[in-house]
Amino acid sequence: MEKNRLEAFSDGVLAIIITIMVLDLHVPKDENASDITALKPLLPVFLTYVLSFIYLGIYWNNHHHLLKAANRVNAAMMWANLHLLFWLSLFPFVTGWMGENHFTTAPTALYGVVMLMAAIAYFILQNVIIAQHGRDSKLATSIGRDFKGKLSPILYAIAIAMAFFRPWISCCVYVLVALMWLIPDRRIERALD
Amino acid sequence: MEKNRLEAFSDGVLAIIITIMVLDLHVPKDENASDITALKPLLPVFLTYVLSFIYLGIYWNNHHHLLKAANRVNAAMMWANLHLLFWLSLFPFVTGWMGENHFTTAPTALYGVVMLMAAIAYFILQNVIIAQHGRDSKLATSIGRDFKGKLSPILYAIAIAMAFFRPWISCCVYVLVALMWLIPDRRIERALD
Amino acid sequence: MEKNRLEAFSDGVLAIIITIMVLDLHVPKDENASDITALKPLLPVFLTYVLSFIYLGIYWNNHHHLLKAANRVNAAMMWANLHLLFWLSLFPFVTGWMGENHFTTAPTALYGVVMLMAAIAYFILQNVIIAQHGRDSKLATSIGRDFKGKLSPILYAIAIAMAFFRPWISCCVYVLVALMWLIPDRRIERALD
Amino acid sequence: MEKNRLEAFSDGVLAIIITIMVLDLHVPKDENASDITALKPLLPVFLTYVLSFIYLGIYWNNHHHLLKAANRVNAAMMWANLHLLFWLSLFPFVTGWMGENHFTTAPTALYGVVMLMAAIAYFILQNVIIAQHGRDSKLATSIGRDFKGKLSPILYAIAIAMAFFRPWISCCVYVLVALMWLIPDRRIERALD
Repeated sequence: MEKNRLEAFSDGVLAIIITIMVLDLHVPKDENASDITALKPLLPVFLTYVLSFIYLGIYWNNHHHLLKAANRVNAAMMWANLHLLFWLSLFPFVTGWMGENHFTTAPTALYGVVMLMAAIAYFILQNVIIAQHGRDSKLATSIGRDFKGKLSPILYAIAIAMAFFRPWISCCVYVLVALMWLIPDRRIERALD
Repeated sequence: MEKNRLEAFSDGVLAIIITIMVLDLHVPKDENASDITALKPLLPVFLTYVLSFIYLGIYWNNHHHLLKAANRVNAAMMWANLHLLFWLSLFPFVTGWMGENHFTTAPTALYGVVMLMAAIAYFILQNVIIAQHGRDSKLATSIGRDFKGKLSPILYAIAIAMAFFRPWISCCVYVLVALMWLIPDRRIERALD
Repeated sequence: MEKNRLEAFSDGVLAIIITIMVLDLHVPKDENASDITALKPLLPVFLTYVLSFIYLGIYWNNHHHLLKAANRVNAAMMWANLHLLFWLSLFPFVTGWMGENHFTTAPTALYGVVMLMAAIAYFILQNVIIAQHGRDSKLATSIGRDFKGKLSPILYAIAIAMAFFRPWISCCVYVLVALMWLIPDRRIERALD
Repeated sequence: MEKNRLEAFSDGVLAIIITIMVLDLHVPKDENASDITALKPLLPVFLTYVLSFIYLGIYWNNHHHLLKAANRVNAAMMWANLHLLFWLSLFPFVTGWMGENHFTTAPTALYGVVMLMAAIAYFILQNVIIAQHGRDSKLATSIGRDFKGKLSPILYAIAIAMAFFRPWISCCVYVLVALMWLIPDRRIERALD
């Protein structure tokens, strides 16, 4: 039952984060506000919104599977979970900043920093749970070598560095990582083996 | 239990979407802000809010019945569900844009586009669930010919086209579709048979 | 289980309504923004927030008891519940409008109108549930003569009328009704008998 | 089951409070909005956000343990819980005000006042639950002498007073109290004994 409340709280926070991001799509207010062209400046914001929505969907999916495998809840797990939610809560801000500034250097790099920190926070949560259940537990074996989990932070780091030269490459990396997670697990792991 | 969390997350997102739409009813700030006439420009926003509220209520109702009939949850279902939530998350934006521009062409057409995409997303989710449970399952037979589900996208498409000539007709179509879903099922299906 | 999801969705909507009201307490932005006097214009907004918070607390409490007594969920109940949530969702708007205009006629009257509509919506929901469970059910007898439920709409109507002459009297009535609901049931009913 | 709904509602409110605080991190809009220096004025807001996030995490953790130990729910508990949620709902406002005014006297003192009121509200809720379960219940003994719960309000009071002389000392006190709660219980209690 204890685990239920941890899940419910996380679901609540994730549901709110995923939904308030849309508030950065400000309804146009100027004189041409009723024109279809009024939406043009919103396009990068919209595209960033789609990207962040997919990322949060992936996090919700993975979080869901991770906690399903966990049996007990302890203080370390609670704080590791809150730490993850903290970085995810910054998604609306970095999404809005990157979208409204058309993928320029600083916002694109910061987007990557928050992605990186969230990935590290997820990694910590996963290890806290594995440590609690034992290296030989069903959970530990099901996570396996965690190829994607280890590759993602490296790709985010590359994207952050690239933002200072070619921000559009960073954006491509962000899209690529999202796609990597969307494609069902085994196939990609085999292909990469 | 897995299904519970999918429902809980969807409920959270739907509850937030339905509630943040009201943030587009901005409290009047000008010098006549305490006058009842200050509400006049808010009337179209309010009417659009009522319409979108009813639509989200219908989606919540149908979603609720659909998932009640489902036994298992798989990755395809999760992503089909997130896809539906994505389009529903755009309701506050299109509601605010249509309301604040008094039902002019572009916002009225875009409202229809988001309605259409949400209807298609619901259709996909429904088919993913049916595919998983089998054509002969209780779920498949209870959905039956799905008259309303097939008529709605056609009506939305008509409304989008009409927005370029007579936006008020589009609005009538949106109201009509909502009413069609509000009226209890069997009676209308029989009448239309 | 079906009832659980109705409760969860209502809880979600009520939790969001009660929390986004606080967004009308705008952080002061002018040059004296760091001064304690910057809070003075926020005082009426704050007081209205406290009042609306208590009202939503009362609605949550009553809603909770009402649904606890219900065994089944049907379509009428779902829509009666959504109808109630609709009027409650207007609380942040009327709270902000009344607070920011220092209890002038129009906002004070509108606050009463939304209170009245919410009370009527609750009355409808209650009757839909009683109708479903039967006049002799435990639910029907536990609600009894429903003294408060019948008095409140009358008091709201009086408050709406008074707003055109002495808005402060309307505010007193709103506070009075809230107190009437806060004081435990039996004592006040006996006193009024 | 009754307790579940109290928890679910509290979780919902806490999840929303913790998430809407991030809306005070406004996406920069001026001409240098895409520059990394545009984030500099946001730094104090961000630091205050981190602090408030940790506080709300602590409250969620403690609330979770408190309710886990409770068996029954009564009206007094419901209102004591709503009273706590009320003060917590003011966190986004005081967080935004303190952060945007760079820890000047009035906002820093008000932050402490809301912290103090929330601590008192938690203390009341705890005592309502203990009163209901009996002084000898497992709950009462597990809370024990409640060293931290009694020290925190005193420290908040000191911080409020210090805000009129050296606001940065108040901020240090707020950080100190948060750290005191983060460090696992027994060790600090022993050290302080």
